Amino acid sequence: MQKIVVANRGEIALRVMRSAREMGIATVAVYSEADRNMPFVQYADEAVCIGPAPSNQSYLLGDKIIAAAKSTGADAVHPGYGFLSENAGFAQAVKDAGLIFIGPSPAAIEVMGSKLAAKQAAQSYGVPMVPGTETPLRSLEEAREVVKKTGFPILIKASAGGGGKGMRVVEKEAELAEQIRLAKSEALSAFGDDAVFIEKYVAAPRHIEIQVLGDQHGHCIYLFERECSIQRRHQKLIEEAPSSVLTPAIREAMGKCAVDVARACNYYGAGTVEFLVDEQLNFYFLEMNTRLQVEHPVTEMITGLDLVKEQIRIARGETLSITQEQLRINGHAIELRICAEDPANNFLPDTGRLDTYIRPQGYGVRVDDGYEQGMDIPIYYDPMIAKLIAWGADREEARLRLLRAIDEYRVTGIRTTLPFGKWALQQPAFISGQFDTNFIGKYFQPQHLEGHDTAAEQAAAILAAQLWQQLAAPKTAVTTAAAGNHSNWKKRKTRR
Amino acid sequence: MQKIVVANRGEIALRVMRSAREMGIATVAVYSEADRNMPFVQYADEAVCIGPAPSNQSYLLGDKIIAAAKSTGADAVHPGYGFLSENAGFAQAVKDAGLIFIGPSPAAIEVMGSKLAAKQAAQSYGVPMVPGTETPLRSLEEAREVVKKTGFPILIKASAGGGGKGMRVVEKEAELAEQIRLAKSEALSAFGDDAVFIEKYVAAPRHIEIQVLGDQHGHCIYLFERECSIQRRHQKLIEEAPSSVLTPAIREAMGKCAVDVARACNYYGAGTVEFLVDEQLNFYFLEMNTRLQVEHPVTEMITGLDLVKEQIRIARGETLSITQEQLRINGHAIELRICAEDPANNFLPDTGRLDTYIRPQGYGVRVDDGYEQGMDIPIYYDPMIAKLIAWGADREEARLRLLRAIDEYRVTGIRTTLPFGKWALQQPAFISGQFDTNFIGKYFQPQHLEGHDTAAEQAAAILAAQLWQQLAAPKTAVTTAAAGNHSNWKKRKTRR
Repeated sequence: MQKIVVANRGEIALRVMRSAREMGIATVAVYSEADRNMPFVQYADEAVCIGPAPSNQSYLLGDKIIAAAKSTGADAVHPGYGFLSENAGFAQAVKDAGLIFIGPSPAAIEVMGSKLAAKQAAQSYGVPMVPGTETPLRSLEEAREVVKKTGFPILIKASAGGGGKGMRVVEKEAELAEQIRLAKSEALSAFGDDAVFIEKYVAAPRHIEIQVLGDQHGHCIYLFERECSIQRRHQKLIEEAPSSVLTPAIREAMGKCAVDVARACNYYGAGTVEFLVDEQLNFYFLEMNTRLQVEHPVTEMITGLDLVKEQIRIARGETLSITQEQLRINGHAIELRICAEDPANNFLPDTGRLDTYIRPQGYGVRVDDGYEQGMDIPIYYDPMIAKLIAWGADREEARLRLLRAIDEYRVTGIRTTLPFGKWALQQPAFISGQFDTNFIGKYFQPQHLEGHDTAAEQAAAILAAQLWQQLAAPKTAVTTAAAGNHSNWKKRKTRR
Repeated sequence: MQKIVVANRGEIALRVMRSAREMGIATVAVYSEADRNMPFVQYADEAVCIGPAPSNQSYLLGDKIIAAAKSTGADAVHPGYGFLSENAGFAQAVKDAGLIFIGPSPAAIEVMGSKLAAKQAAQSYGVPMVPGTETPLRSLEEAREVVKKTGFPILIKASAGGGGKGMRVVEKEAELAEQIRLAKSEALSAFGDDAVFIEKYVAAPRHIEIQVLGDQHGHCIYLFERECSIQRRHQKLIEEAPSSVLTPAIREAMGKCAVDVARACNYYGAGTVEFLVDEQLNFYFLEMNTRLQVEHPVTEMITGLDLVKEQIRIARGETLSITQEQLRINGHAIELRICAEDPANNFLPDTGRLDTYIRPQGYGVRVDDGYEQGMDIPIYYDPMIAKLIAWGADREEARLRLLRAIDEYRVTGIRTTLPFGKWALQQPAFISGQFDTNFIGKYFQPQHLEGHDTAAEQAAAILAAQLWQQLAAPKTAVTTAAAGNHSNWKKRKTRR
């Protein structure tokens, strides 16, 4: 492999290019017109503009990406995550063009792209699954039979679904028929496929996933788990490795299950097997993501592996460089996704310019990002600006180091999830590790954010202001810090 | 411990403050007038100006530092390295003021501050030493007796010496009397102490040091070694851990010796025992540094320990949190010191402004620094701007990652050791690990530096320029890149 086209943008494009460069492999950026000044375009050895900003006119155009590979003499394509990374047709087209696709086989992407096909494949290996239907629901009668076994509440899910779309909770018999009808209709319009199925609804679950690596010679290993339960709108915000609740025995059982799921589709490359884990630590296979995950750095930090390099080695046909027995967990890592969102306003995306953008430094801190100070955050793409990762010898050190790094991060001009991260990391539920996917819904109130006045604080501020006026003291503005303007670098006192 | 005065500046002040903050301990910066805008002053919770720029009017004034601690209500002092860090009188004054000195006892500093006293202390534990005298040389006759056993060449060293001062190599008998006289006179004028001693001269030695940690309850462990042979003017430039030549048995033997040296002076805190290692891997005790070393991060990267936190815990009276048996080496780390020096001009210090200063990012890369873009490098202090550290699963990954990071580092406005690092890391002797303290003298030629034209290249450039003129082609300047203007971020081709 001599030259890789990175069919992606932002932080993940830069991250892939760094590993390629360390391996002596040249890189080609493909970019949209909106991204022409982005660091990943500057960093690449070559860069090809493939169209206007909207993804369907650039990053989703497989033909243009393959043409860029051909015109630059590249011999491989790394898809990153999102965009075309889980598109079996694109993977096949890359292969058909005589290029190496740095990812799994098109067949494996195809199987795991369908939740029902994935379940059927996994079933033959005895992988535990949430009780429910393993084939598309054919009738209301079938649904009623299933519910007799599972009991209410249940989830109706679209086989082709993702990101929570086409998913409906049904609490009681009377709602069953109507909710199935609505779910099928939503699935058809969202995915062009009305196949839905039923799963028992697991209350207060954890989302824990297992990283796997398989080569093209039948070897497959698991790189332990990532705890990803802290989510808003089914999107992860804080991830960590290892989980603070898994016992070594459950870790091993989940790892073996994940390897079985991978074997079920002859998987090679890096992949992630997602599980639901209930309060009794029973675990159930959810789905497999056939690509690098956003949160892969926490696994890198505790295993010492560079997952992009492993992907490249596997794609080159090499056998895995490490065995299951050689792997061990070294310390603890926690990642905060820094998104251009306003946590005080229901995490709505924010737009604007990074007027100040200064990264934290120091031992155990890693920032994977794709912007520089002064840049605009384009409205066309995912609002994630950066991933802030802290490693520690144990979970508490990682937590305190991440808090220290959050305090050092200086971002102005745009609201971010940094204040949310600072709040979350200090919650008793987070500190104890006793939380589930309801963490945000259960504990978070926007007024908890630093710089966001609570009612009591506001009342006190008003009273203080009145007192000042009555005393005819020198006028002093009572300022309220903006939630998105986050800095603790300022020294509090200076004596000269 | 509630609040620490950091009696230092630049990167080490910032590095100490970061660990303190992660432990919930407040920090006080003491700073010179020249440093008022430095990041470490901004980062501290409080800051006290202690005088004008020259060190003897600020950073070397123990009384002012202790007064700053008193006035801010601090209860501890961290000395960093250099300045007062190995001054037993300062350590004692800190204690006498009722403050905690984050370092060893004044007595241990005192013993190890004298090379001869250190040797005498270590001798009782059977620590191997370079053959020679262990007491101050009393006469020429004594010298002749010693040389009968050691043979020529020998080294004459000042007991109070450091940094190569008062050190003379004697090749033959005829020079002996005169060189002893010169060494004593040099030692007297440099250190106010004319005590000198003789050591057999070890040709082509390696400089390998062992990091130790001792608590105040008699426990002492070693954190493996650092290979520090790549030096210019007896000053380290590239350090790595572990060494690529030590066997596990030699590592353990050196580690145990280092612990013995520490025990010989009832050492507590973090300390470093330096050894000379000859071509047959015989090792000899050189001296002990009773402080944190500049190069401590490579040890942190392979052990996962935070040495500043360990220093603080020991100073608080806690017992060591880890045993020798629990320690293991995880991967490999290499550090390059980025100094404001011109490697093309005998590493002479350079001055000026950091017009561009952009740090590398990504997995496995750590930058410990003390400046920001736009700042001047003050002429009063050590020319080190930053330490660039790369960790890898093995030595080769660390080496390639450090090269990648060097390419990402963008510094303009000042010449640095970055191009030297890029050159050194690509030398066969470095790649194989087969080098000694003569590395720079043996291999380095300034014309090897990237952007520095060799004679052949210059001739070719002149010829090309003449051809251009003869052909009456459009005038094109033949540019020679400045060695200090180092960037590989620029993309080589861009297609739009």
